[in-house]
Amino acid sequence: MNDLGTSVKDPLATRLTLDGPLVLQSGISLSPVTIAYQTYGTLNADKSNTILVCHALTGDQYAAGKHPLTGKDGWWRHLIGPGNVIDTSRYFVISTNVLGGCLGSTGPKETNPETGRPYGLNFPVITIRDMVQAQARLLNQLGIDKVFCVTGGSMGALQTLEWAQRFPDRITAAVPIAGSYRHSAQNIAFDEVGRQAIMADPDWAQGNYLEEGTVPKRGLSVARMAAHITYLSEPALQRKFGRRLQDRDNLTYGFDADFQVESYLRHQGSTFVDRFDANSYLYITRAMDYFDLAEENGGKLANAFKDTPVRFCLISFSSDWLFPTTESRAIVHALNANAAKVSFVEIESDKGHDAFLLDEPEFHETLRGFLDGAARSVDLQDVTAEGAQ
Amino acid sequence: MNDLGTSVKDPLATRLTLDGPLVLQSGISLSPVTIAYQTYGTLNADKSNTILVCHALTGDQYAAGKHPLTGKDGWWRHLIGPGNVIDTSRYFVISTNVLGGCLGSTGPKETNPETGRPYGLNFPVITIRDMVQAQARLLNQLGIDKVFCVTGGSMGALQTLEWAQRFPDRITAAVPIAGSYRHSAQNIAFDEVGRQAIMADPDWAQGNYLEEGTVPKRGLSVARMAAHITYLSEPALQRKFGRRLQDRDNLTYGFDADFQVESYLRHQGSTFVDRFDANSYLYITRAMDYFDLAEENGGKLANAFKDTPVRFCLISFSSDWLFPTTESRAIVHALNANAAKVSFVEIESDKGHDAFLLDEPEFHETLRGFLDGAARSVDLQDVTAEGAQ
Repeated sequence: MNDLGTSVKDPLATRLTLDGPLVLQSGISLSPVTIAYQTYGTLNADKSNTILVCHALTGDQYAAGKHPLTGKDGWWRHLIGPGNVIDTSRYFVISTNVLGGCLGSTGPKETNPETGRPYGLNFPVITIRDMVQAQARLLNQLGIDKVFCVTGGSMGALQTLEWAQRFPDRITAAVPIAGSYRHSAQNIAFDEVGRQAIMADPDWAQGNYLEEGTVPKRGLSVARMAAHITYLSEPALQRKFGRRLQDRDNLTYGFDADFQVESYLRHQGSTFVDRFDANSYLYITRAMDYFDLAEENGGKLANAFKDTPVRFCLISFSSDWLFPTTESRAIVHALNANAAKVSFVEIESDKGHDAFLLDEPEFHETLRGFLDGAARSVDLQDVTAEGAQ
Repeated sequence: MNDLGTSVKDPLATRLTLDGPLVLQSGISLSPVTIAYQTYGTLNADKSNTILVCHALTGDQYAAGKHPLTGKDGWWRHLIGPGNVIDTSRYFVISTNVLGGCLGSTGPKETNPETGRPYGLNFPVITIRDMVQAQARLLNQLGIDKVFCVTGGSMGALQTLEWAQRFPDRITAAVPIAGSYRHSAQNIAFDEVGRQAIMADPDWAQGNYLEEGTVPKRGLSVARMAAHITYLSEPALQRKFGRRLQDRDNLTYGFDADFQVESYLRHQGSTFVDRFDANSYLYITRAMDYFDLAEENGGKLANAFKDTPVRFCLISFSSDWLFPTTESRAIVHALNANAAKVSFVEIESDKGHDAFLLDEPEFHETLRGFLDGAARSVDLQDVTAEGAQ
């Protein structure tokens, strides 16, 4: 029984250590590198039906099924499953915990083999490219040479674009959702607020909280609250909460959570600290800040996709102000300049950036249609008994 | 020499204690109440040329002239002065530090007469109405029955609207700039993030930091950083900073301020803590959250301005996402429903909410034109030797 077989049978404990070190974009050689992942569905006989699903900043490998820590359904529960948009009776879905993450992949909370203690801030700063290189190495070891489709929302879109740039011959299709080719000044600014909130917490202990036995709950909670506002739209906040009061009829003239929106945000903050590592938050936001496909191609985004054979589908949401439609459109222009195969849809939604995680029928139908077309274009083989492992 | 005279001669030390207690909207009676203020220009003979200028969340009474703490020019330096838009050779400008503020007016950092110690969290929660009542009482004691114009941006606009609602017969004109009739869910959310950041700082000491001898610098700095992003627009951040690096040619693969926008935000945070009180920040944001002219008029904003004789000029900025144009437009509709005298201008600007503080010629000409018209409509008396005090 190989790792892949294990992963299907025991999805909560699946990880794989890469053969040899991973040379990071910074030049640092990291070893060992372990990647935790989940799979859904069955690999077909010619190993051609893999969809690599990439998670966002605070996501993880549990894109579907029950999350072992929270008990909640996976973050793409609306999309992944038998007969669903990402149809697990047809596709073999792999979702990895990113390098630098905190749910089994090598990251700042894992043990530094050189010291026997948690990495903390001794973990090297990683990039989106490093995350993607680790995924590619994982797929190598799983014997999957070619991926049918890479997709993901938000930071998942950044990974998807990096895949398309770095390994155009290893993927048939790419669907970056609610993403961008580079982190904007405003996004860097919000990330920096989150990092400063974490670092301001004395319980962060200069990054050594695991050894100190503390948890920088307050700082991480404030970081999450600030970020969470950016995931929603103003109209969505107004519709969902408005100025409604929380379990009271009148203002209390105090600093309790009088308003529902305050109570909601506090809840978002306090539940987040139970499932996420503060240092991972620092490293992953930094990886996003550093992402700039234009800059690394001499300032010309089109150069990132020269003669690309990849079929693209760009999806954005009209009320997303964190990764607005203009950013996706810039990517479409760069792809058009290469005469690439590209579709682009802006979904009308008032739900803001978070729409990529929600039940948005038009978004789902767009993705379903694109995947169907891409599958036909390569004559994607069905899963058969022969193909099942 | 009365207080008014003193203020003109010694503008850095001017404050006045109200005669008797101030009954707050919460029902609490606060006493004594002192209001610090600045004046610019000269009151005319019939005391009809006063412009009351109301400051924003982190502003103060130093709207013009040198600020005694920062050494910088006042926050409306582009507008106030002889021959300027708010022409101090024609108008008598008063600017007060709001109730709850931290530059001389009664607020959480002042001494609680009952205990002889700083109020801290024993200071009562105040509202925009309380701020305005205190201003009105101050003007009473200065012998100014009628104000020619009340104006201000952001929270200054909220005060302006409250003046128009509460004292329609005491003001000729009202110019609420970049404001709203109520704080939106998103604005409450950002305020709550700031408050939680402050309260998360152990040096806040449950509000008793003045007695403990600590300063919640880190929390207040994070609060300021988060808020500051909302004062700018995404295009302004992109134009001003983009992804440019700070004093370096390459990314450092670390958590220093690699990007200019990070360095700028950190600077905003660290300089803010030198001039502002953390508890004042809590109280003033709370006052803004509580503001809702529609709710307190049975859900109908138009009722706030029934048969108003006030001449209004509403000004908004196209890229302001904290107080977007839609909010000003809702006020215009409510005023139209009362057949009020109202002008409304949305200024095209990519500078975001902060545009009300900046050198924006179209905004300034709009304000100048409106003030001229309003002055003509009441036949505003010139300042004469007779009027000068």
